[in-house]
Amino acid sequence: MERDAVLFANEAFYRAFADRDFPAMDALWAREVTVACIHPGWAPLVGRSEVMASWRGILSNPQSPAIACRRPEVFMQGMNAFVVCYETFDGNFLIATNLFQREAGGWKLIHHQSGPVPAPEDIEEPAETSMH
Amino acid sequence: MERDAVLFANEAFYRAFADRDFPAMDALWAREVTVACIHPGWAPLVGRSEVMASWRGILSNPQSPAIACRRPEVFMQGMNAFVVCYETFDGNFLIATNLFQREAGGWKLIHHQSGPVPAPEDIEEPAETSMH
Repeated sequence: MERDAVLFANEAFYRAFADRDFPAMDALWAREVTVACIHPGWAPLVGRSEVMASWRGILSNPQSPAIACRRPEVFMQGMNAFVVCYETFDGNFLIATNLFQREAGGWKLIHHQSGPVPAPEDIEEPAETSMH
Repeated sequence: MERDAVLFANEAFYRAFADRDFPAMDALWAREVTVACIHPGWAPLVGRSEVMASWRGILSNPQSPAIACRRPEVFMQGMNAFVVCYETFDGNFLIATNLFQREAGGWKLIHHQSGPVPAPEDIEEPAETSMH
């Protein structure tokens, strides 16, 4: 089912992020259209080289957070899809939108925006050291 | 040109927001697919009735900020498109992603995420009272 394929691509994105696996991250982003990315607190990045340079920096940082995806919701739109999900790390929460487009190799990311959100009341998260 | 039509729809969204014009806002959101919305600091809203109820509340509040869109960038994907733009009000900045889909009546919003961003260094903004 296409919805599952999108969910799988979204999961692969967070696995590449958590594993600091740049080649996996690079393979997940579209090549046929202009991509964009808004990291929390950053100005928007536009174009594949700028976006991938940001991921190379983030994933090469041994201090980068061990992020995990919670409660992904998939919204299908034919050849496009988007996922809304929480991102958690060290007891903190972000909320993200991930846009995907179908390319030859499957569902590829074309845009990501992540920003702060209060901790949802109904998600259990182990208390850990906060990020500063 | 389709790009201009998307930009026009994006502009109409911020005009409806600034004018607190709920009927205009309601007409801008898609009816043929499930829509979603992430207001700054809110949990994600899913479905047209929930999303439009949030806009009804925001637009009926006489204290809601006089928001304006800056530097919209349009990304076309056939029947879909997204816009990345800054939102400014009272000297503060947010960064937003607006997703559009072509419906019978033109380009309609299917998702909006807005979150905090530092003021871009190269945008001149008149100093005004901060929001609290």
